[in-house]
Amino acid sequence: MNYPESLAHLISNFAKLPGIGEKSAERLALAIVSSEEEYVNDFSASLKNAKQKLNRCTICGHLTENEICSICSDSTRDKNVICVIEDFKSIFAFESSGKFNGTYHVLNGLISPMDDIGPEDINIASLINRVEKLSNPELIFALKPTIEGETTTMYIKKLLENKPVTISRLAYGIPIGADLDYLDNITLAHALEDRKKI
Amino acid sequence: MNYPESLAHLISNFAKLPGIGEKSAERLALAIVSSEEEYVNDFSASLKNAKQKLNRCTICGHLTENEICSICSDSTRDKNVICVIEDFKSIFAFESSGKFNGTYHVLNGLISPMDDIGPEDINIASLINRVEKLSNPELIFALKPTIEGETTTMYIKKLLENKPVTISRLAYGIPIGADLDYLDNITLAHALEDRKKI
Repeated sequence: MNYPESLAHLISNFAKLPGIGEKSAERLALAIVSSEEEYVNDFSASLKNAKQKLNRCTICGHLTENEICSICSDSTRDKNVICVIEDFKSIFAFESSGKFNGTYHVLNGLISPMDDIGPEDINIASLINRVEKLSNPELIFALKPTIEGETTTMYIKKLLENKPVTISRLAYGIPIGADLDYLDNITLAHALEDRKKI
Repeated sequence: MNYPESLAHLISNFAKLPGIGEKSAERLALAIVSSEEEYVNDFSASLKNAKQKLNRCTICGHLTENEICSICSDSTRDKNVICVIEDFKSIFAFESSGKFNGTYHVLNGLISPMDDIGPEDINIASLINRVEKLSNPELIFALKPTIEGETTTMYIKKLLENKPVTISRLAYGIPIGADLDYLDNITLAHALEDRKKI
């Protein structure tokens, strides 16, 4: 396709975003061209701004514009409860559920020998450090139910073996609204094993 | 949701794009935060760049970085054939079909009394002007098959009544790959009326 160069460049940048194909990238770039200049300038500035201002909380690894994130600096949150997650995106999902009043710890990856990612490559040391300073710590693992997720959970559990810490993982089971007929066997087996008295 | 301010701002800008909902906007903004700074700076610059550099071809109204677009300045294209379209996005669709070797004329709207858009609000005068300068002009209307599209086509046809110009519109009919059972009555009626001997 014979796009003017600046349009082609913009399309290729949109197409680098996750879930945006060539066709959507064209649609978005053309929308930009048809938009008000004020909006485009603001959009342009907000891209750079977000990238420059946002860094990781020095305690939990969440996104923040300050040194410590809004969750770690919130005195109403229970600092003894730490939900261990793979990446900061999960925090937004948990927060929007509104059901969690503890804090988080972002590992920034999972142990994966296949990809040459060892325990020292992810934020495990800082987690152990946090746990050791707490009087009555509780860890909730919210990692992907994959080999890497399980390995990481087990590795950290082993490191904390002799420490007084309560450790759990999220329940595996049937997602709300799911059709049982289409559920995979492993999920069904877990749902059966972890059945709950009612 | 308690986003850091620069992230919230970026999300709201993504959400202003067509077809991008709140959830997708969050996903895209978080992808930006996780991207290389070089890419984000380039993306930011390409937004402004596209908006600033692209303007409308003074002949046909297509997007171009110059005064005259690549199609109007292409000596191999048949300048006597003008495909009349509502907006420049259609040009990319036609060009990607690779079946058209004429030129275009972007009306930038359709006559619509309901929306207070009259003939003088869209690029009709410049079209008549172009047609009058040609020796053997042919107009192909490729407007939406709606009342506005039909009205605009008929209005321009009337203006050219006494001029030696061949006028046609795109065929209405069954889209390739469509399921006849799900086709609307009007399309079916058109497809029947315009049936083609084989």
